[in-house]
Amino acid sequence: MDLLKQKILSEGEVYEGNILKVDGFLNHRIDIPFLKEVGREFHRLFKDEGINKILTIEASGIAIGTMVAQEFQCPLVFAKKTKTKNIAGDIYTSKVESFTHGTTYDILVSKRFLDENDKVLIVDDFLAVGNALNGLIELVNKSGAQLAGCGVVIEKGFQHGGDKLRSQGIKVESLAIVEKMDAATGKVYFRD
Amino acid sequence: MDLLKQKILSEGEVYEGNILKVDGFLNHRIDIPFLKEVGREFHRLFKDEGINKILTIEASGIAIGTMVAQEFQCPLVFAKKTKTKNIAGDIYTSKVESFTHGTTYDILVSKRFLDENDKVLIVDDFLAVGNALNGLIELVNKSGAQLAGCGVVIEKGFQHGGDKLRSQGIKVESLAIVEKMDAATGKVYFRD
Repeated sequence: MDLLKQKILSEGEVYEGNILKVDGFLNHRIDIPFLKEVGREFHRLFKDEGINKILTIEASGIAIGTMVAQEFQCPLVFAKKTKTKNIAGDIYTSKVESFTHGTTYDILVSKRFLDENDKVLIVDDFLAVGNALNGLIELVNKSGAQLAGCGVVIEKGFQHGGDKLRSQGIKVESLAIVEKMDAATGKVYFRD
Repeated sequence: MDLLKQKILSEGEVYEGNILKVDGFLNHRIDIPFLKEVGREFHRLFKDEGINKILTIEASGIAIGTMVAQEFQCPLVFAKKTKTKNIAGDIYTSKVESFTHGTTYDILVSKRFLDENDKVLIVDDFLAVGNALNGLIELVNKSGAQLAGCGVVIEKGFQHGGDKLRSQGIKVESLAIVEKMDAATGKVYFRD
């Protein structure tokens, strides 16, 4: 997606530790017209898959998921990161190791909102080693729902989480794949 | 907003501890067409205020904020709940006590995304004692931005956070104000 690549090159910032900061348009300040284009692009890529539910994870996935669900005219479900008082009853859970924070946390989704009648598109802002997507895929599998695929805004190709998922036969579409980043120069190189 | 009241009456669940669970359409599974109406209603209520930025707080505010920002054709900024590695540089912070979880946490917004040129509408899913809104208002005040008002989907009127804000001269619009809830009967009563 050329618009995304342009935004990464003009607004993204590269930091040590393989961090690409895009908080000016994707995950702190949200550029809504841009996100609408993201939603349209994922709809174009997955529109023939019979998708009836979008699944993402709090917090950065929610704005993206909202715009994608709007295009698919279907509900959005977002997995929660800790068990709260307000989630009662039966839940599906899985564990996710956070690459960014160096911690492990539980994610959960209520059994009422994901089941064997669902065909699910998972969306998220980043795909690096794939921990968050793997946790979400585990929730889908536990629920008996069918996984249509994964839509990611920015994939860090050099961390190979996307390659592993694709090698398992999962349809993974990333709107930009970063092949290399250099914190010293601030340069970002995309996979062709 | 009649559609919201109907949804609360038909889908909401009342639990001990003044908990109104609406996770079937508002904060776990998201009903997108409903949220679009929420966005339109807040636009109708605040469209003459010169708003150029929507501010909310992760995680439950983000889907709402996305749809509101879409109506206002302006960016959404969501305050984050903990300091992460990915937020560098100068930030505004305030402290919020969580009514639901019984904990206190810091919220923050990057100084790059909120400043004296902004006229801000704060939106959130719930208003009870008003802790989250007060924290967000503090961020707006610290930034030098102007507060246009607060838009809340569901206000728990019996906890009086909204009344306190209104008594300070702040424009607070709630799409439904719950005056009384009864966990034993499951009944919800709205303020006229």
